[in-house]
Amino acid sequence: MSHNSFGHLFRVTTWGESHGPAIGCVVDGCPPRLALTEADIQPFLDRRRPGQSKFVTQRQEPDQVRILSGTFEGLTTGTPISLLIENTDQRSKDYGEIRDRFRPGHADLTYDLKYGIRDYRGGGRSSARETAMRVAAGAVARKVLAGVTIRGALVQMGPDRVDRAHWDWAAVEENAFFCPDPAAAIRWEAMLTEARKSGSSLGAVIEVVAEGVPPGLGAPIYGKLDADIAAALMGINAVKGVEIGEGFAAAALTGEGNADEMRMGPDGRVLFGDNHAGGVLGGISTGQPIVARFAVKPTSSILTPRKSVDRFGQEVEVLTKGRHDPCVGIRAVPVGEAMLALVLADHLLRHRGQNPDAPTEARLPRN
Amino acid sequence: MSHNSFGHLFRVTTWGESHGPAIGCVVDGCPPRLALTEADIQPFLDRRRPGQSKFVTQRQEPDQVRILSGTFEGLTTGTPISLLIENTDQRSKDYGEIRDRFRPGHADLTYDLKYGIRDYRGGGRSSARETAMRVAAGAVARKVLAGVTIRGALVQMGPDRVDRAHWDWAAVEENAFFCPDPAAAIRWEAMLTEARKSGSSLGAVIEVVAEGVPPGLGAPIYGKLDADIAAALMGINAVKGVEIGEGFAAAALTGEGNADEMRMGPDGRVLFGDNHAGGVLGGISTGQPIVARFAVKPTSSILTPRKSVDRFGQEVEVLTKGRHDPCVGIRAVPVGEAMLALVLADHLLRHRGQNPDAPTEARLPRN
Amino acid sequence: MSHNSFGHLFRVTTWGESHGPAIGCVVDGCPPRLALTEADIQPFLDRRRPGQSKFVTQRQEPDQVRILSGTFEGLTTGTPISLLIENTDQRSKDYGEIRDRFRPGHADLTYDLKYGIRDYRGGGRSSARETAMRVAAGAVARKVLAGVTIRGALVQMGPDRVDRAHWDWAAVEENAFFCPDPAAAIRWEAMLTEARKSGSSLGAVIEVVAEGVPPGLGAPIYGKLDADIAAALMGINAVKGVEIGEGFAAAALTGEGNADEMRMGPDGRVLFGDNHAGGVLGGISTGQPIVARFAVKPTSSILTPRKSVDRFGQEVEVLTKGRHDPCVGIRAVPVGEAMLALVLADHLLRHRGQNPDAPTEARLPRN
Amino acid sequence: MSHNSFGHLFRVTTWGESHGPAIGCVVDGCPPRLALTEADIQPFLDRRRPGQSKFVTQRQEPDQVRILSGTFEGLTTGTPISLLIENTDQRSKDYGEIRDRFRPGHADLTYDLKYGIRDYRGGGRSSARETAMRVAAGAVARKVLAGVTIRGALVQMGPDRVDRAHWDWAAVEENAFFCPDPAAAIRWEAMLTEARKSGSSLGAVIEVVAEGVPPGLGAPIYGKLDADIAAALMGINAVKGVEIGEGFAAAALTGEGNADEMRMGPDGRVLFGDNHAGGVLGGISTGQPIVARFAVKPTSSILTPRKSVDRFGQEVEVLTKGRHDPCVGIRAVPVGEAMLALVLADHLLRHRGQNPDAPTEARLPRN
Repeated sequence: MSHNSFGHLFRVTTWGESHGPAIGCVVDGCPPRLALTEADIQPFLDRRRPGQSKFVTQRQEPDQVRILSGTFEGLTTGTPISLLIENTDQRSKDYGEIRDRFRPGHADLTYDLKYGIRDYRGGGRSSARETAMRVAAGAVARKVLAGVTIRGALVQMGPDRVDRAHWDWAAVEENAFFCPDPAAAIRWEAMLTEARKSGSSLGAVIEVVAEGVPPGLGAPIYGKLDADIAAALMGINAVKGVEIGEGFAAAALTGEGNADEMRMGPDGRVLFGDNHAGGVLGGISTGQPIVARFAVKPTSSILTPRKSVDRFGQEVEVLTKGRHDPCVGIRAVPVGEAMLALVLADHLLRHRGQNPDAPTEARLPRN
Repeated sequence: MSHNSFGHLFRVTTWGESHGPAIGCVVDGCPPRLALTEADIQPFLDRRRPGQSKFVTQRQEPDQVRILSGTFEGLTTGTPISLLIENTDQRSKDYGEIRDRFRPGHADLTYDLKYGIRDYRGGGRSSARETAMRVAAGAVARKVLAGVTIRGALVQMGPDRVDRAHWDWAAVEENAFFCPDPAAAIRWEAMLTEARKSGSSLGAVIEVVAEGVPPGLGAPIYGKLDADIAAALMGINAVKGVEIGEGFAAAALTGEGNADEMRMGPDGRVLFGDNHAGGVLGGISTGQPIVARFAVKPTSSILTPRKSVDRFGQEVEVLTKGRHDPCVGIRAVPVGEAMLALVLADHLLRHRGQNPDAPTEARLPRN
Repeated sequence: MSHNSFGHLFRVTTWGESHGPAIGCVVDGCPPRLALTEADIQPFLDRRRPGQSKFVTQRQEPDQVRILSGTFEGLTTGTPISLLIENTDQRSKDYGEIRDRFRPGHADLTYDLKYGIRDYRGGGRSSARETAMRVAAGAVARKVLAGVTIRGALVQMGPDRVDRAHWDWAAVEENAFFCPDPAAAIRWEAMLTEARKSGSSLGAVIEVVAEGVPPGLGAPIYGKLDADIAAALMGINAVKGVEIGEGFAAAALTGEGNADEMRMGPDGRVLFGDNHAGGVLGGISTGQPIVARFAVKPTSSILTPRKSVDRFGQEVEVLTKGRHDPCVGIRAVPVGEAMLALVLADHLLRHRGQNPDAPTEARLPRN
Repeated sequence: MSHNSFGHLFRVTTWGESHGPAIGCVVDGCPPRLALTEADIQPFLDRRRPGQSKFVTQRQEPDQVRILSGTFEGLTTGTPISLLIENTDQRSKDYGEIRDRFRPGHADLTYDLKYGIRDYRGGGRSSARETAMRVAAGAVARKVLAGVTIRGALVQMGPDRVDRAHWDWAAVEENAFFCPDPAAAIRWEAMLTEARKSGSSLGAVIEVVAEGVPPGLGAPIYGKLDADIAAALMGINAVKGVEIGEGFAAAALTGEGNADEMRMGPDGRVLFGDNHAGGVLGGISTGQPIVARFAVKPTSSILTPRKSVDRFGQEVEVLTKGRHDPCVGIRAVPVGEAMLALVLADHLLRHRGQNPDAPTEARLPRN
């Protein structure tokens, strides 16, 4: 993991600022001969795209992705895949007044302290727009992960959680919030309308689940699958917490309550009574679903003035007038799915490099 | 981050199994001419060592660290520092019965599925004993972090949290739990005695804090400081969740409530009203204290039999008779501190490689 | 060093095929606030560009580079710099006949065996066209290397070497061969005209020199400066050998003859009697000029038919009718300079990350 | 490739100084279930060991390697393999007089300029002793490379080359020089005796060959197999040049002369008329033998006084009285073999991570 690269064998490097001519990424290490065209990527970008409902920013970004290299006649060639999206709807003037002011909760101050310069237009490099390229790269990673299903959902908005008894994956695509609980979606619509009207914002918790992941992905100590998932999700803009399986709730359980007992399935597969572990034991996948959650803070761009300072050391008030999501967590759902896909694709390649004859299912006896 | 290495410029590689002849690590990239002897490392190992109270495993491991390379006449030379601890108190017979059985909640099954072989004695590579080397490496990292104070505390045991109004760092060293709230320590003693007697176990939440961290550490997208901290902490044995600053609670706040307003201090330093961000904005340190928490699941080794399977695909019952901590979270405190130190040392070197003239304090105007 | 990335802190990732829509690269880790516009890069690309004389391929590639990210108002921002060149003069039909045939000396066979697919148009990813992006990235690296001068020259064409007694750096820019010896340039013109007419090709040796390099760059064992230079130069298309300083000739010297004796200069600087070492001792720069050479094989694309096989296992004859350089070594001169610049920039950042107070000149006593 | 680590998936980190308590390495990423005990490693160390003839240093270093982790019941487990050799025959007093003086041709000056400190005893980290660990790690790499034979030979001592018409691999083990030409070995004995008596030293060229390497190892641009081999060999102490296949001689060939024509073998395998390429095309292995050579400079430690400077900026004379090899190139033969093995093992794992179904022989049609 480098400054702007992610992964080792399946490696993604993103580049671009919110208001530059384009954003893009390079996906290196992709296995060859996978069918891949823009049509495989675009739907995932469309899910993340702003402007689709009144609850996300009204910027119109067509986000049309182009593949510039790494495929030939519709197949990957094993060489770097360059993806590019041109920036079109840029209203740079919206951001002029924050050129010298540091917005609380944003990266303005830290970029200035680190680099002594920043592209303030639209947040520059720290804009959520960069996550479009993660989603695009994630679509490529999904191609590598044949047989694996990766889905995400918003499980909490503000303080209001979904009722897991009413979880319905189909519902996720039927509301503006990626909410798996239709009743919660109705409540959230009211909440978010209220927040939007008052110029406020709300946080959220997202859950991402990968099913069909082979056992054996990950490595014992520093290449742990859950550690890499944690980095991947914590690295999404505005994320402040990450959990695997039972997560923080595990702290309140006893050893008995937290045990995932095992038994044999009729086909030689190991079955688990529960999945408190979230599909990872000792940093290595068990074959159970990988379950992770991450918390997104409320959008820092709000209409209520906040006290801050400027580049010259003067105290000022900052109020963000740009077009912003009242709950950035919503659009983080496809981003979280993508990051999980990137981690799994990289670990799949790393695992089979070292262990080419490892089983792809949790079957016993192993040989 | 590789299978068993951590960090980039300041890089640690650990090796060793619980019941092999020794465990060790190599610390590469350490700046030269830092005073370093075994006496700088041993106190941190002693804090982590088992056998110090009835609440941690009764194994007697002197854990005497030796420096085998990388120092000369008491100073680091800039070349790799090899640290080694011999394994002495190994009762391999304790573990014979689990040779073929997969303990629920342990890495037994996943190692077997991944590698087709495992050193079952004492958990082998997945033993918490490996964390001793992280603590040792962390002691070297602290040398690199002149002016930075890194401390940790247990803030929750089972479901019982400390009262932050009574937080006392001095208390942390005065009880067996690294607990900053003396009243909570008394309650926990009763809880843990009960858990130990009944052969059960408890989870915990640890908070680690780094003060005096210069601004500018971290990088925008995939080298984010908080993402690397998340990986570092999630990579500790038995950890299931990681938070920075407000963490999951941020999801329930509004944008107004979560804003860390800024003002100017008398000396040109930026001061913050709050630290919901936990010292990191946009993946880059602000100069405020870095605050992170992680959740440790209850020890999986318990005296109550659990259903499981063996290597041959037979259903069995597993009961762990070895000597184990009823709350592994306690000993995770010094490990968490060490991991935070490793992340910060690596990022400090990376930051000054790219930005040699960046300020070491959050002062404005920058130049 | 990854499949398509080079460097660690100053890291370049290139992408693109000869006949795709574009080629490009991402330069990550560049220090901020360096003046950088396309005008800083274009001259280096123009030096490498085909079509400038009858001795290099007659393809017309304007090779206009665009900066798509990482700069703001003419200064680098510390974020990834994306560079892109559109491919324009593509005559794909020229290459149709070698779609299924493996050209001797080319990567056709090995790509097919490795990936099972290849973009055969113009050599695809293995085209020398990719080196344009190395030259572009090298121009950025030069910005990081303030005070360092990096130059290259062709010192041998076919079996004919320059006379070092007549070395004239100014002459390098005055002939079509980057030749520092005007008399040799005249001989080479005749040689190469003859080779071109007969459809043959010639090899070459290039020397690259970096002056003003601070001492201390490099690391003792596997991060040796000369090892990284060797990889950088050997990684250029068609290169078969690399030397530092005395190179292979050192094998025939005695220890006395090879010694670079030292003395003190009037200003406290260490002076050397010779530079057999080529500016590197123990993998670390001495402050003397870095001198490296690399050998380029004769162009494999020739008009004389050669025996080969095709994808279906049939024996065939192959003759390359495309437009090609009779001596690819000529255009390798700016590429070699660029690769040397990339290595030095990366090592400069790595060095000062670990050793921020190391001297920038070879002065004694050090402190 | 980091400061003291080599490789990516199969990664080696070495540590230790000549006169510290021990030297060692960690081999990470080794596939599991390979038979490995000290007896697999020791013979390679014995080949490299000093004190075996009057032509190599008379230090007595038993160099007994111990495996401290990563194996269980004689098999690798997939976890890090820690190897250690204790330093025994250390005569630190021999080196006292060069504590403050910089030996020409050695790393004394550059370490001091870079780090401001160095362990001067026996060369410290820059001692050739460190290469023992490369040899040990190479022995592990050979285990990964089932079916691959890696051999090396000295092909030139001083200015005297072997006659390739008399090449006999069996002869290599029958003389003190790893010389494949018995007649040359007789000449070299006289040459080296003379050099030793006069306190002088000689350079050498070593050739290493890997047979049975599957096609497809390597990657197109920066992960080229030949580039990584170049780095590996150039990184050996005292090496100043590296060649693949025809090497520098390729510069003097024509395209016709350099072409390796192909034909079909009776079993569907591609056969080559020649191997000018040295087994690598476009950075990827062809299935032919990998052939590389490297030049070792004459030992810098000689008995004739040389002019130099000391740490205090004073001009001095330096004469090395310690026990040293008159031709360090001899002992570089097993080191070169080991480095080649390390590169191939790493690339094998990387290759099959990305291309799990690639053929292991150069057969056509591929599918």
